[in-house]
Amino acid sequence: MTFCFDLHATDGSARAGLLHTPHGQVATPVFMPVGTQAAVKAVSPRDLDDLGATVVLANTYHLYLRPGDERIARLGGLHTFMGWDGPILTDSGGFQVFSLSQWREIDAGGVTFRSHVDGSAHRFTPEKAIAIQENLGADIIVCFDECAPPDDYDYNVQALARTHAWAQACQAAKTRDDQALFGIVQGGVFADLRAQSARFLTGLGFDGYAIGGLSVGETKEQMHASLEAVDPLLPADRPRYLMGVGTPQDLVECVARGVDMFDCVLPTRMARTGTALTRAGRLNLRNARFADDPAPIEPGCACYACTHFSRAYLRHLVKSKEILAHQLISIHNLHLLLTIARELRQAVMEGRFQAYREEFWRLCE
Amino acid sequence: MTFCFDLHATDGSARAGLLHTPHGQVATPVFMPVGTQAAVKAVSPRDLDDLGATVVLANTYHLYLRPGDERIARLGGLHTFMGWDGPILTDSGGFQVFSLSQWREIDAGGVTFRSHVDGSAHRFTPEKAIAIQENLGADIIVCFDECAPPDDYDYNVQALARTHAWAQACQAAKTRDDQALFGIVQGGVFADLRAQSARFLTGLGFDGYAIGGLSVGETKEQMHASLEAVDPLLPADRPRYLMGVGTPQDLVECVARGVDMFDCVLPTRMARTGTALTRAGRLNLRNARFADDPAPIEPGCACYACTHFSRAYLRHLVKSKEILAHQLISIHNLHLLLTIARELRQAVMEGRFQAYREEFWRLCE
Repeated sequence: MTFCFDLHATDGSARAGLLHTPHGQVATPVFMPVGTQAAVKAVSPRDLDDLGATVVLANTYHLYLRPGDERIARLGGLHTFMGWDGPILTDSGGFQVFSLSQWREIDAGGVTFRSHVDGSAHRFTPEKAIAIQENLGADIIVCFDECAPPDDYDYNVQALARTHAWAQACQAAKTRDDQALFGIVQGGVFADLRAQSARFLTGLGFDGYAIGGLSVGETKEQMHASLEAVDPLLPADRPRYLMGVGTPQDLVECVARGVDMFDCVLPTRMARTGTALTRAGRLNLRNARFADDPAPIEPGCACYACTHFSRAYLRHLVKSKEILAHQLISIHNLHLLLTIARELRQAVMEGRFQAYREEFWRLCE
Repeated sequence: MTFCFDLHATDGSARAGLLHTPHGQVATPVFMPVGTQAAVKAVSPRDLDDLGATVVLANTYHLYLRPGDERIARLGGLHTFMGWDGPILTDSGGFQVFSLSQWREIDAGGVTFRSHVDGSAHRFTPEKAIAIQENLGADIIVCFDECAPPDDYDYNVQALARTHAWAQACQAAKTRDDQALFGIVQGGVFADLRAQSARFLTGLGFDGYAIGGLSVGETKEQMHASLEAVDPLLPADRPRYLMGVGTPQDLVECVARGVDMFDCVLPTRMARTGTALTRAGRLNLRNARFADDPAPIEPGCACYACTHFSRAYLRHLVKSKEILAHQLISIHNLHLLLTIARELRQAVMEGRFQAYREEFWRLCE
């Protein structure tokens, strides 16, 4: 097994660790930039490297539909295909099947759905999701799961039964020994279901545990309660990955609740609307008040955008619909998330997580 | 005067020189990437630096309208504004006033026009064009001129009279001594008018000579004949800049006719349609035949795109509408033009321009 996780330090529930993968090590807590279609939007692999990104995400559902996982396998796998030789994580496609497909029908064995690209019919089963991810060849793959509406208890009970059966099926279907497989804890906003899911998946034994179905409309309190329900139940020597989260604030508060890994489209998606993330809040760079502002997005920020360009210039690029706006604001936004993850790790290593957390919130607007 | 031009070698009419500007030296022949709105589309200044670009263009008309030349001056000038500390050339806005504005009326003193952005009314005169370019603060500025339809003789006679009067007015209006001013040779496709224009402007004496109004629909033969008409008349110790040209083939054939400097939106505009330029011709990366092609755009090319990504991946990015497609193909296309300009210089320096030219055409499809 080329995959393992060393826990270097804890501070309360906050953890600092090191993931070992076939394509390199990942210090945690870590923020993983999202490359849905095998490309982080508007950011090249060399820019990601320059940002200190250590692991990126790609999406099973999207790549299966286009350009096709078998094509990517023929072309040498996802690392070669997308020009990123560091670690990659592919999600299972579960979330996208439930949120993006034009039509879907769930049964005990899997999900039949129509592509959002061309309306064609497809079926994902646990076995299929694993086969696709083995073709893609990421370092970390995850089980196929059902993303249920977070606040319907009865539905979550049924969905959880399917998700658990599919987790077993994924485990059985896996054939490559150079990929880590993560189970996905589900259960909506219900602490008892979350705990049940954590216990069940821990019993099966995975290389890591994803926590899914959060940041989909529930309150922060509900998200935090769900994390608190599973934190004591997940094994200390396995990484925990909170899917689709989050904001700078989320990173701090979820590391406080035992999370090691994060991914979110927020930094790149916000960038494409002209919005920059800062520690103090968000800047809408379309705003006329930035037209003559010579300051960088965030004074003191060491990113390429902040060390070379003013808010006035970035506003001009946004207003003029220049692609460079997406590139530069994406770089800044990713830099912020990656930096906060590194700071969180350092704070845990030095036993001052709580002080870091308090100072972080003091700076927020 | 911080601007001068050293002619290092000639080979027939082909020339190799070195421009000295307040922001650095430029070896010629040179291709200048176009940053119309103070940004080379989808290519950051650090990527331009990595490509070996030495001078970039920006557009007077566009920047006057948005974000405003006075604003750019307040923000420290164009170099600071766009984060490019190398040489910059601004064109006069003449071409855009005639090609982009919603409405325009020419008189002896200048042009009144409506903005393509918001329909607002504006007036450009020679004095105004210089004042704007002094606010922008480029290293090289050019005279305000009239771009006439290339094949209407009588109209070109009248337009040339205005262009020449405006050239004198621009020279008189110029106040900064850290900017070089180029005259613009006009005259459509008519060798006698081109010669007349070259003689007139040379008589006034400029730091360099732009050749305008070409590559606007005339044939290659007409373009070449126009260059041949002015080549012997322009002073050897001043740079010649062929505006808005061109293709890889144009670079070779126009260097053969005495041109030192080029700019063109072609490499970045083609990139945004998914078209890559190569020595052998153009690749439409949307084409299905590239879906499984592991080769780079151009085998042997040293650019970042070709050393890291396959045609199959680039096709996937184009089809998936990923911004990264624009970035990577723009990098390749610019690399090709910049490399050919460097090769042309080397060939002239080594007295083997004709051999280079023949080999270049042999490789073209």
